[in-house]
Amino acid sequence: MSTAPASVAVLGLGSLGTALADAFLAAGHRVTVWNRTAAKADGPVARGAARAASPGDAAEAAGLIVVCVLDYRAATLLVEEAGPRLKGRTVVNVTNGSPGEARVLAERVAALGAEYLDGGVMAVPAMIGGPEALVLYSGPEEAFARWSGVLEAPARPVHLGTDPGLAPLADLALLSGMYGMFGGFFQAAALVRSAGLPVAGFTEDLLLPWLRAIGGILPGMAAKVDSGDYSATGSTLAMQVSHDSIGDVSRAQGVSTELFAPVFELMRRGVAAGYGDGDMAAVVELLGRRSASRAG
Amino acid sequence: MSTAPASVAVLGLGSLGTALADAFLAAGHRVTVWNRTAAKADGPVARGAARAASPGDAAEAAGLIVVCVLDYRAATLLVEEAGPRLKGRTVVNVTNGSPGEARVLAERVAALGAEYLDGGVMAVPAMIGGPEALVLYSGPEEAFARWSGVLEAPARPVHLGTDPGLAPLADLALLSGMYGMFGGFFQAAALVRSAGLPVAGFTEDLLLPWLRAIGGILPGMAAKVDSGDYSATGSTLAMQVSHDSIGDVSRAQGVSTELFAPVFELMRRGVAAGYGDGDMAAVVELLGRRSASRAG
Repeated sequence: MSTAPASVAVLGLGSLGTALADAFLAAGHRVTVWNRTAAKADGPVARGAARAASPGDAAEAAGLIVVCVLDYRAATLLVEEAGPRLKGRTVVNVTNGSPGEARVLAERVAALGAEYLDGGVMAVPAMIGGPEALVLYSGPEEAFARWSGVLEAPARPVHLGTDPGLAPLADLALLSGMYGMFGGFFQAAALVRSAGLPVAGFTEDLLLPWLRAIGGILPGMAAKVDSGDYSATGSTLAMQVSHDSIGDVSRAQGVSTELFAPVFELMRRGVAAGYGDGDMAAVVELLGRRSASRAG
Repeated sequence: MSTAPASVAVLGLGSLGTALADAFLAAGHRVTVWNRTAAKADGPVARGAARAASPGDAAEAAGLIVVCVLDYRAATLLVEEAGPRLKGRTVVNVTNGSPGEARVLAERVAALGAEYLDGGVMAVPAMIGGPEALVLYSGPEEAFARWSGVLEAPARPVHLGTDPGLAPLADLALLSGMYGMFGGFFQAAALVRSAGLPVAGFTEDLLLPWLRAIGGILPGMAAKVDSGDYSATGSTLAMQVSHDSIGDVSRAQGVSTELFAPVFELMRRGVAAGYGDGDMAAVVELLGRRSASRAG
């Protein structure tokens, strides 16, 4: 989707900040950049960005101010340096942090008369501007609506809600899903190579297509978690833990079960808790409680 | 790929065996079926299969004999009942079991003058005959080559090697990868709902596309495992464990870290073992050893 050219400032020009600045430039926006080590701005400036001498100067030149630094301590420092010059502007902070940090900074930005959107970048820098890049946003609906056309330049923007803590929370939830997949890969790789099979062929030809196919059942499990109705549609939780074949074969192959055993143990506890006849998604009940309250 | 009509027997008509028999029928093969509870054969017989009175009768009617029962004890019993009438035939056993069980049964079948292929079905019955169904085979190369055209009817057939233990081993490795992905989903779902967000939308719109995108790095990690060269191409293992943000936020949200913590601890041990500057795939070294020997 195209949008009218806007004035965007990017504060912090590591590899991600640079990729964001370049994506805004490529979409035809007026981009102002600033970085504490000024030489890091040379690339975007050579590609058409204006160089600002301070965070405040950058803020004054733009309506949308993207902050992309190491942590919330650094992000807060930038906000304090720009101070009242942020007034009337929108700060989009894509720095990694916790829901609590996002809310504290959002309040500080609001006190300066600016709007705050927190952003969770679900992409490595090389993916920015490409079809698979995604950025999660949380904060005022109006602020997101006003800037979503501009925010489409680097990545597909998704707004999760007004609580600024939601984007970092969903960001970490996606990462936890990724580490689960990685853990499964590590276990599978260890098993496969214990039998002398090449891991690369197994992964490309078998594991990835298998995960893609079986991933199709996750939305159905998610719907059960939302409704609390864990009626089994396929195999039951009890069936899943009737044999510990993966544990047995791992031990026989001299492969650690440390990554698989916790999933298996959780499923066993699910059976003990009375969910044996239901879908395995019921184990989510054992991990924590549903809440209507904001991210903590 | 089409192939000349062949005579196929299917022994064991649970939901998977029935789906297999139907797929062979649909591909134009002559199918003979047998099940210990005879009524279970009624469906396939109504759809064109011949009914056999015993495993031996079924074996005699076919060149390819597919065994699909509860466990290897049941599969072994069938083989003993058919006994010398298996001579000159090929037994494909898709019963779930361990590499060791597969090798014992393979030797018994060979002693009866028949060929043995072990099969690992990577599909639920409803997927049989569809584009995503996969069956892993292991056993004599010639036996697989002779029957692969027929074996394409129910699912894409992949031959892993001559050791009959390879198919069950790779089957369990794929399942361990799946449970890793499920564990990641459970953790993500618990986090998301702790903040009052619907899990279904998160899973469909964010988690699945994210896992699909990030899954693209697994083949590269697999190549590092194969080569033993863990030079980092992206972020290093040490960078991955510099903060325990997922653990911290899970605790703040009242969500158990039991599924995520083992992955994180393994990565920390990887740093302690000297892999901090390398790719995180190096943690596979801590799970078990590479072997050129057969599956155990």
